[in-house]
Amino acid sequence: MKILRYMLIFVPITFVGEFLHWEPTLMFVLTALAIIPLAALMGEATEEISFYSGPKIGGFLNATFGNATELIISFFALKAGLFEVVKASIAGSVIGNILLVLGASMLLGGIKYKSQHFNQKVIDNSASMLLFAVIGLTIPAIFMHTLDPALLSTRYEGLSVIVAVIMILIYILSLVFSFYTHKDIYSVDHSQESSPKWSIKKAIAVLVGATVLIGLESEFLVSAVEPMSEAIGLSEFFVGIILIPIIGNAAEHSTAIVMALKNKMDVAVEIAIGSSLQIILFVTPVLIFLSLLFTPMSIVFNEFELVALVFSVLIANRVATDGESNWMEGVQLLAVYLIIAVAFFVL
Amino acid sequence: MKILRYMLIFVPITFVGEFLHWEPTLMFVLTALAIIPLAALMGEATEEISFYSGPKIGGFLNATFGNATELIISFFALKAGLFEVVKASIAGSVIGNILLVLGASMLLGGIKYKSQHFNQKVIDNSASMLLFAVIGLTIPAIFMHTLDPALLSTRYEGLSVIVAVIMILIYILSLVFSFYTHKDIYSVDHSQESSPKWSIKKAIAVLVGATVLIGLESEFLVSAVEPMSEAIGLSEFFVGIILIPIIGNAAEHSTAIVMALKNKMDVAVEIAIGSSLQIILFVTPVLIFLSLLFTPMSIVFNEFELVALVFSVLIANRVATDGESNWMEGVQLLAVYLIIAVAFFVL
Amino acid sequence: MKILRYMLIFVPITFVGEFLHWEPTLMFVLTALAIIPLAALMGEATEEISFYSGPKIGGFLNATFGNATELIISFFALKAGLFEVVKASIAGSVIGNILLVLGASMLLGGIKYKSQHFNQKVIDNSASMLLFAVIGLTIPAIFMHTLDPALLSTRYEGLSVIVAVIMILIYILSLVFSFYTHKDIYSVDHSQESSPKWSIKKAIAVLVGATVLIGLESEFLVSAVEPMSEAIGLSEFFVGIILIPIIGNAAEHSTAIVMALKNKMDVAVEIAIGSSLQIILFVTPVLIFLSLLFTPMSIVFNEFELVALVFSVLIANRVATDGESNWMEGVQLLAVYLIIAVAFFVL
Repeated sequence: MKILRYMLIFVPITFVGEFLHWEPTLMFVLTALAIIPLAALMGEATEEISFYSGPKIGGFLNATFGNATELIISFFALKAGLFEVVKASIAGSVIGNILLVLGASMLLGGIKYKSQHFNQKVIDNSASMLLFAVIGLTIPAIFMHTLDPALLSTRYEGLSVIVAVIMILIYILSLVFSFYTHKDIYSVDHSQESSPKWSIKKAIAVLVGATVLIGLESEFLVSAVEPMSEAIGLSEFFVGIILIPIIGNAAEHSTAIVMALKNKMDVAVEIAIGSSLQIILFVTPVLIFLSLLFTPMSIVFNEFELVALVFSVLIANRVATDGESNWMEGVQLLAVYLIIAVAFFVL
Repeated sequence: MKILRYMLIFVPITFVGEFLHWEPTLMFVLTALAIIPLAALMGEATEEISFYSGPKIGGFLNATFGNATELIISFFALKAGLFEVVKASIAGSVIGNILLVLGASMLLGGIKYKSQHFNQKVIDNSASMLLFAVIGLTIPAIFMHTLDPALLSTRYEGLSVIVAVIMILIYILSLVFSFYTHKDIYSVDHSQESSPKWSIKKAIAVLVGATVLIGLESEFLVSAVEPMSEAIGLSEFFVGIILIPIIGNAAEHSTAIVMALKNKMDVAVEIAIGSSLQIILFVTPVLIFLSLLFTPMSIVFNEFELVALVFSVLIANRVATDGESNWMEGVQLLAVYLIIAVAFFVL
Repeated sequence: MKILRYMLIFVPITFVGEFLHWEPTLMFVLTALAIIPLAALMGEATEEISFYSGPKIGGFLNATFGNATELIISFFALKAGLFEVVKASIAGSVIGNILLVLGASMLLGGIKYKSQHFNQKVIDNSASMLLFAVIGLTIPAIFMHTLDPALLSTRYEGLSVIVAVIMILIYILSLVFSFYTHKDIYSVDHSQESSPKWSIKKAIAVLVGATVLIGLESEFLVSAVEPMSEAIGLSEFFVGIILIPIIGNAAEHSTAIVMALKNKMDVAVEIAIGSSLQIILFVTPVLIFLSLLFTPMSIVFNEFELVALVFSVLIANRVATDGESNWMEGVQLLAVYLIIAVAFFVL
């Protein structure tokens, strides 16, 4: 993935652009192009560190930093009060992981290999956890959409915090489950390279550096959202549900596709489903807690997001149960994503 | 199925009826009785032609003409501007195939055989394709039902056409999948008779003749819908969702049941699920395109249809995953169909 | 379970309380504590009787009396015109059985045993039957929520009775299925004790006595619901959906957990899913019929109940398909229950 290294050139370019007040749409595109290689660098640094820290802490670091870019962008959107963009990007990440990433992996992998197999047991576990997580997430929303809004305003922030606490507790328990009590079923081997390429100092320096730069770029990106939306007539909602998740997850997406092309469908599927799970059980509650520092954000998604979430998760469960994929399954996942994207774009 | 041949007597009777302006309810019943044997004849002719054309083109012809009756009736309903009837009959065909046809097959087959088995892999493939197709179909509808109607009117016909294009592309790709890249998993043997009964000329003549007559009968049928609804107080919606699908699919239905009684549950399940899939991926987009010749019809189903569609497809997926059926499963499918029919009738 | 015997002391206490007009919240708690051991006693008596009656009638008695407590409480709520409480407690029983009972069984059993297995075929059968039953139950409700209420009032009681008749017919057919035509697949051995502990006379006397006492206690309980709700600011809906099902099913719940701790996950899962099935196919229609004696009750659930029912059943089906459980699955089921309970409590 050398091309990702060259893309780092967009980092200084965006600083120039910010200084010279280039127009928002250009800045949005440039910061997006800068964030993608930074996110990849952060992922690489995390993996290097896990060589020194041992598999347990390494697994934890990978799990926690896996959606760090997403979290940082959302944090700045939250700070800017763009709640709708934040929530749309949460839903969009899950939808994008399941339909776009998994779809592209299955299509491209399936063109190369007639059928690809994955460890059904591991995936089944994650997929069912995802189903429960999404159901947990949608229950407060569904209740609220059917109640009189006037009755709600005062109480539903409290409910959001309670649900967020439950979510993060489940996240912690799921780490206990996969790193302690049932670690044997998660024996998928991610790291074939047996030795680190970087020194531990370099790895930590890169991790810190990439995180700081992603933070800065995210601030540029978020500040471009509103003026860009107005300028080119795109809804902020579309930016949140389609564009931001693609930017935030691009590095992961490319890894999943590379794995599918290497016929390691296990890893590709685990990235897509595991990442979705983390967004719901870790990123979302953390954002709810962080929002308490500014203006409390509720956990209530709108109907579009709910329907898209529930459908995506049903599809993930359907796909997971047969333990096998082919190009046609990839086409179907991409088609559903395309219809969702077109519907959001047109409406 | 000799009785189907004798039923052809209703064809001339309906011409007399049309000429003498018999009352609409009688005409509706008579044309329904005339369409059933014509549809069976069309199916037979298609199968005969496939002996001469070889399995690939034969499979394609079978797939395309399988829902031709449905398509012809809908075309005339479309031309008459009966959009609600057309959409109700699309939803009703899917519901009818899954709940009524599959239910009756499983019940009757299950009374004869304690448990019946089918190739889970093939069915699983079709059932998951059906899930994706229905999700694709419901997404625009769900979005539209939650938006302000005033905002929509100008844009949603465009969205309908886009979704229709995506659907038909997936249909074409699914033919590539099942006739080229993965034809080996679809090795269910439909045609045991190793030689044709008709000459190719006769087969083509019968196919053309049956198609023309179905066209004429469909015009009689459709023109009876409105006055009949008024006369006997049945909603047009009920006619569309329950009666028309039964008429249009009667020939196929009886084949599925005959197969179940021969303990060929594979074929019975494939007819029900495959036919549903074709209605969504082929008949629906073709009708959307045809409607552009008259008044554009949107792809947006009403809430009843959506709920019934999603539930039917969830049930089809549930049934498909265990690869086995018994009479009690048949009873349950029929019970759900009965509740839907009664609810539509009462409401 | 000796503690259950000692709890019978609450029976005379509640009689004293009723006589002295103790305050409703106290009475609610005391009658709840009295009903729990009575329900256990009723269960024990039914099991004793089945030693004398042979397995077929025994199975039928167990199935019928399994939810007798639930039915008796609901009957008195019905008589008191508390329709919302009755319907909430039906939905709450299903939700509680699947999420609370199954969740607690899987968590506690899973802490003791790393993974527990159950006969997937039997459970799969029940889970799919449950899916169909819930879909059947929700169809009229969903249709009605989307129609103009003014149109409905006169017709939907008729529809409720028709649906109730279909449900009870399916219940009878399901008994035929599991006790006659397919009894071999239900060969889970419930009764290891090969000889009865009580004489048939004693068993019948206990059954009659417990039933009468549960009836009386239920009347006390129901008459405390309204004043208690007002006094402590709990909605009647919360009482119906969370508290009453816990009281009515406590005896069954403890059996399921005991079975899970003995690593008999088969029995635990069957209690939870089988009991849910019985509530929908037997208790609900019986209540609809009984309501015709007073004021007809419709079978239409509200949106909250519908969503919670459909989600619970999807989860039950998800859990059933893998034939295996662990503590993390238990945690997830309990988390969904907790979120539902908190949402109902807050809203």
